[in-house]
Amino acid sequence: MTGYILDEATTQDIEREQATYGPIAEVLRELAEVSIRTEVAPEVAAEAVARLREVHTMLSAELGGASYGTRFNKEGFGRPWGNAVVGVRNPVAPPLDIQREDDGRIWADFVLGPQYEGPPTLVHGGVSALLLDQLLGEAAAHAGSPGMTGTLTIRYRRGTPLGKLHGEAKMTHTEGVKSFVSGHIADAEGVCVEAEGVFILPRWARGENNGKLRFD
Amino acid sequence: MTGYILDEATTQDIEREQATYGPIAEVLRELAEVSIRTEVAPEVAAEAVARLREVHTMLSAELGGASYGTRFNKEGFGRPWGNAVVGVRNPVAPPLDIQREDDGRIWADFVLGPQYEGPPTLVHGGVSALLLDQLLGEAAAHAGSPGMTGTLTIRYRRGTPLGKLHGEAKMTHTEGVKSFVSGHIADAEGVCVEAEGVFILPRWARGENNGKLRFD
Repeated sequence: MTGYILDEATTQDIEREQATYGPIAEVLRELAEVSIRTEVAPEVAAEAVARLREVHTMLSAELGGASYGTRFNKEGFGRPWGNAVVGVRNPVAPPLDIQREDDGRIWADFVLGPQYEGPPTLVHGGVSALLLDQLLGEAAAHAGSPGMTGTLTIRYRRGTPLGKLHGEAKMTHTEGVKSFVSGHIADAEGVCVEAEGVFILPRWARGENNGKLRFD
Repeated sequence: MTGYILDEATTQDIEREQATYGPIAEVLRELAEVSIRTEVAPEVAAEAVARLREVHTMLSAELGGASYGTRFNKEGFGRPWGNAVVGVRNPVAPPLDIQREDDGRIWADFVLGPQYEGPPTLVHGGVSALLLDQLLGEAAAHAGSPGMTGTLTIRYRRGTPLGKLHGEAKMTHTEGVKSFVSGHIADAEGVCVEAEGVFILPRWARGENNGKLRFD
């Protein structure tokens, strides 16, 4: 059991799904921010809660599986849309829109609002770890050596301010089923947080196809 | 500049703030889950988005500062309510309700839904890192040695299933301004992820009071 789902979705189906449900996650991200910042009167807050409950009832009328998983169609188009970092249907995810370069480097520019705060005005150290785990894992996959995180080491060089940030990662080398990746998050002044990770190809994904993920 | 806010809020003010705004974050957490799982028709999804936009406008009528920060009142009652892990006003936070024991151990029982997914049916490795960063930092603070994360090392022993989980941490020792803390996240079968962290007291918080945080 891989938990990965190969489905019959056409490219058109996929575009329709994103156009239908993506905007729900988008407005919920904006609501997360005002949930923290709002100072409206108690009766306004109560009215907001009542309306949000109504929307919850509307959207709950038809529910899919307990979690989204990672779905692939026959063209190999992957949809990790529930993913906590890149999931376009997940309001918890910023979401990162990761770019992949031919030289193996992957990167993303993103903005973190108040829902990612740890120390006042700074990104939560654990949020940096969360984003770096995803970036490093995607760099390993982009280099042809996908895997689950084995170890992750984060070094905090200075506080990471909320706002515009840049993240990037690249695989440095492999040793058998292990991929070694490093990366960082930076603001306009330079690197704030560095990470090194070791990713390990799960046993179920190792096969005669030399370590490529199989979905057959 | 510490970014920590000492305010005039009474205990009653604080209870009123939590009762007023906490439920907004609660229903937004439930909405995050259905945002990922819903399969309603496009017109229902569009109606949901329109209604969510209205609530966004309602709540945006009066906004406080750009981020919540950490507020303290004169009784020393801290409100890290925007915090990405423990913030009761933050829909991104599960939120963890951390318990503190006399022997220095801190712990929390919590449930992670589909918005914290990485690999299919499993907690995102970075989400485990996020929660462990908070748990380890709180253990350092509980032991009297608060600080910012210096380094964080996470070892993934096996996949962490979504659902009911337990996290805990304890400071092992200090060296000057550094606190060494270890912890883990476990499910009913045992430990899934282990962490070690080094927390460093920021320069601004070191003083004649022997390293205790000062808010004067």
